[in-house]
Amino acid sequence: MAAFAPSLVTMNHAINIMQQALNGVKVLDFTQLLQGPYATQMLGDLGADVIKIEKPGSGDIYRSMTFFNQWVGGDESLCFLPWNRNKRSLAIDLKSTETVEIIRGLIKQADIIVENFRPGVMERLGYGYDTCNELNPGIIYCSATGWGADGPYQNRPGQDLLVQGLAGVVMASGKQSDGPVAVGTALSDQLGALHIVYGVLAALYHREQTGRGQRVEVNLLQSVLAYSMQDFFTVQNGARAFTRPESGIAHPGNGAPFGIYPTADGYLSIAMNPWPKVVEALDEPTLMRFNDPQVLFDRRDEIYDHIATITLTRKTEEWLEIMLALDLWVAPVNEQKAVENDPQVQYLQAFREIEHPKAGRIRVTDVPIRLSETPGDIKRPPPLIGQHSREILEEYGISGEDIDHLLKTGVVTEEAVG
Amino acid sequence: MAAFAPSLVTMNHAINIMQQALNGVKVLDFTQLLQGPYATQMLGDLGADVIKIEKPGSGDIYRSMTFFNQWVGGDESLCFLPWNRNKRSLAIDLKSTETVEIIRGLIKQADIIVENFRPGVMERLGYGYDTCNELNPGIIYCSATGWGADGPYQNRPGQDLLVQGLAGVVMASGKQSDGPVAVGTALSDQLGALHIVYGVLAALYHREQTGRGQRVEVNLLQSVLAYSMQDFFTVQNGARAFTRPESGIAHPGNGAPFGIYPTADGYLSIAMNPWPKVVEALDEPTLMRFNDPQVLFDRRDEIYDHIATITLTRKTEEWLEIMLALDLWVAPVNEQKAVENDPQVQYLQAFREIEHPKAGRIRVTDVPIRLSETPGDIKRPPPLIGQHSREILEEYGISGEDIDHLLKTGVVTEEAVG
Repeated sequence: MAAFAPSLVTMNHAINIMQQALNGVKVLDFTQLLQGPYATQMLGDLGADVIKIEKPGSGDIYRSMTFFNQWVGGDESLCFLPWNRNKRSLAIDLKSTETVEIIRGLIKQADIIVENFRPGVMERLGYGYDTCNELNPGIIYCSATGWGADGPYQNRPGQDLLVQGLAGVVMASGKQSDGPVAVGTALSDQLGALHIVYGVLAALYHREQTGRGQRVEVNLLQSVLAYSMQDFFTVQNGARAFTRPESGIAHPGNGAPFGIYPTADGYLSIAMNPWPKVVEALDEPTLMRFNDPQVLFDRRDEIYDHIATITLTRKTEEWLEIMLALDLWVAPVNEQKAVENDPQVQYLQAFREIEHPKAGRIRVTDVPIRLSETPGDIKRPPPLIGQHSREILEEYGISGEDIDHLLKTGVVTEEAVG
Repeated sequence: MAAFAPSLVTMNHAINIMQQALNGVKVLDFTQLLQGPYATQMLGDLGADVIKIEKPGSGDIYRSMTFFNQWVGGDESLCFLPWNRNKRSLAIDLKSTETVEIIRGLIKQADIIVENFRPGVMERLGYGYDTCNELNPGIIYCSATGWGADGPYQNRPGQDLLVQGLAGVVMASGKQSDGPVAVGTALSDQLGALHIVYGVLAALYHREQTGRGQRVEVNLLQSVLAYSMQDFFTVQNGARAFTRPESGIAHPGNGAPFGIYPTADGYLSIAMNPWPKVVEALDEPTLMRFNDPQVLFDRRDEIYDHIATITLTRKTEEWLEIMLALDLWVAPVNEQKAVENDPQVQYLQAFREIEHPKAGRIRVTDVPIRLSETPGDIKRPPPLIGQHSREILEEYGISGEDIDHLLKTGVVTEEAVG
């Protein structure tokens, strides 16, 4: 370790005030939609103080989008709510001359800035990296884009599905004859979020050693390419391209039995397993004729069908009992709705309820990792638009009178609870 | 910031020795297969010193697995190579009494330990968390499991596909009538890796403030549940479950046009867009009859077919020109093999070549994020089994004579380059 020798006094002080790993870290969050908000939520889950900067009145654009045209608690969005807990909202106009000094004051005291505007927007607003670095040389400034901050696609819209398609991941799932099959969740956005966390926390460690901040650039495209590292490595260094199976075999590079099989009452996943053991479990000795890795790959679709005919004859639980006893790698398959009732999911308490001022009691995914000394927690529900505008401005030394004025002119807004 | 005030001397010293964000961080990597190695590679990419502990002779079990039964440079694996750059390999028997003091010595000097054995294995080997914490109270000890370190599935095999199935993500992609459709890359493993990085770097920051290490627990299951946060939120708080479309609409919660469409020479992704603009681009005014969000959702499969009939009449590049001019959110779709030739991918230099002692020149995905002051880099190719055994043991003060003895008895092995 480079420069690590805190005095005992410092240590005791720190232990007293730090219950969470990122306590004391101030994040100014200029992001909206999914990628950025998920990243800053992950920082907030571990104790960072995340100030979400929103547009006065309307807020994060994701608030106005939802699934099935359906809303919770009146007009709260099914898309916005999952990604914005553990944040406070400051609704402030970034284009007004009246707010410049306030924003600059926030930047001076921040540790981390995250923004996901299109390239150039923060510069035009007057809050580009160079300005922020001048105001605060310790600042870690993360720009998250779709295609990268520059290059031929700099001005093209960069969005989850578009990135999945361009990066070729749509050629990895489903059947070859289907053509491209997108991953039906926001894969690129979520990988992008995890890469923001990676870059920002590494830069934070570096700043602890040197006092120096830096610019961190994350884009959806390279996040997805890194995620597909094994596939690209194979395509670029192996002699052949991936061809997807036509059956329920679950990976274009794998042979049978690797796949998902129908049972009498549902589905069963069977991962990589020694073939003789699979044959033993299926109790069909004639299947031993396929006992060769090359055959199991080349004839995987045909072999899949043989296995599926047999798995259909028993219920999932029966197969689990038979196969787990042989130490096979198998597991049940759940419908999304049933996942929360799975015994292991229940044991881990992976979901919990929190109270939201407008949506009422909502069920959310809890912090997914466990830190023994500094556990993550959900201390705040997703904020209303500008719910904490006054509180935050007061903390930053703006007088009550000035705050009233800003609210009156509408360059700052606040939505009250209840 | 809690306790941050380095002297100028410390700063200058640190600036001189730190070219990468995680320089000086020592990682003892007891992992194999994908999840753990990807995580430690991400730390190595930013400068951490990663020592990969391998089984003498045979090494990481992933070295013996590959796609299509195909190998590079003799017997190097298409699966192993992508996840193990920027590491040194120490091949050492963890079960031998002769190696106990050496391993304990490594633990005393490490900052981070990552292990992904089944629960209880590290304890039985004598290197469980409590022991390591006693040897080194600053240690950050990350255990990565499939289903969690305890609970009803504690002893069941936890593997990527099995987790995808149990966590319900196989119900998100493809067509509803297909039944479960697995994501055809190691989604769970890769999300698990990113969550290891998240937990370990947050714990590292906390240790810089307090001097105290801790245990970090990451499991594939909760990593995937967190990734699916928006879907679970909807299923658990909305009035209805997701039903996948039967067409090329790309998300179960979205209406038309969101999807991937065939063109005269390939495919085109069309994301969320104002319907009138889409109709204008398609130059088919009768489609305005669907201009209602509810209709665009409820009749999405039928609308998809209408659009696809038109997109088939022109080449992808023509559609891009027409649609980008209208500021529509569209992008081309690439086959995996073609991705490296995409102009933006080329501009970003997302792939590069490195030299491997046995596989020769290999093409790999470069570090996916940009840090302005401490850029990541690939400084070492994936190691041979025990390639650095001697070098590492010497660094830890083992005499040449003792190393010779360990090599002779086979509790340590080394594979020489060339």
